[in-house]
Amino acid sequence: MLGERWTLLILRDALLGSTRFADFQRSLGLAPDVLTDRLATLVEFGVLTREPYQDQGSRVRHEYRLTPAGRELQLVLTALQQWGDDHLPRPDGPSLLRRRMGTDEPVRVGLIDEAGNEVGLDELTLIATPSHPDWTG
Amino acid sequence: MLGERWTLLILRDALLGSTRFADFQRSLGLAPDVLTDRLATLVEFGVLTREPYQDQGSRVRHEYRLTPAGRELQLVLTALQQWGDDHLPRPDGPSLLRRRMGTDEPVRVGLIDEAGNEVGLDELTLIATPSHPDWTG
Repeated sequence: MLGERWTLLILRDALLGSTRFADFQRSLGLAPDVLTDRLATLVEFGVLTREPYQDQGSRVRHEYRLTPAGRELQLVLTALQQWGDDHLPRPDGPSLLRRRMGTDEPVRVGLIDEAGNEVGLDELTLIATPSHPDWTG
Repeated sequence: MLGERWTLLILRDALLGSTRFADFQRSLGLAPDVLTDRLATLVEFGVLTREPYQDQGSRVRHEYRLTPAGRELQLVLTALQQWGDDHLPRPDGPSLLRRRMGTDEPVRVGLIDEAGNEVGLDELTLIATPSHPDWTG
């Protein structure tokens, strides 16, 4: 779903508050038929809902709002943004800071065990199950 | 970089150990010119290195290995996989389990403050800086 061109950028805009077709199009400058297709995919996968709205004197249009599942993709985008800040830094520094609401403490994405303690990325192991295509038992 | 079609899937395969052009192509079934293009992008952004190798009796080929920065993208892919397990579960359960090496404790991706304590996704706030395109001061 996120591997299609534009989808990550549409999601980033949605997480920053865009809801209207025209907002996404203005921000991303992509062809309307491509935007329509990608928004439909995100609705199909339960990331966005599509609801009608009508401005006075205009025809009915639709707005796209993140579902609770869609809002949880913030963690994926934040991990990606953090990676970019670390490995592809902009000359003028990061464009967004990740902070804890209220205290403004820096916050980062990491691995956590069941007790809530941090785990190093080099301590992570991925174990294939029988439902994995490469599983051999 | 990751918003191009196929790039996330190539990265997933690289993190699972693929290094050779033929491995990626067999796994993903994409056109050779597209694979060449996407691998070149990942080399350009410092995610993969491209090194020659030669099997006996064959011509020189290249293998693609993750850089240390590339290996850190595991956190992004793991966050995405976790989201899929939570919100788009397979009928036969997750294909990969995330565990701590040695103890096999479950591990998940989350937000952490500077003291190493977990922070809820609803406590995260993103603060735009002057280098953000929408910054208004």
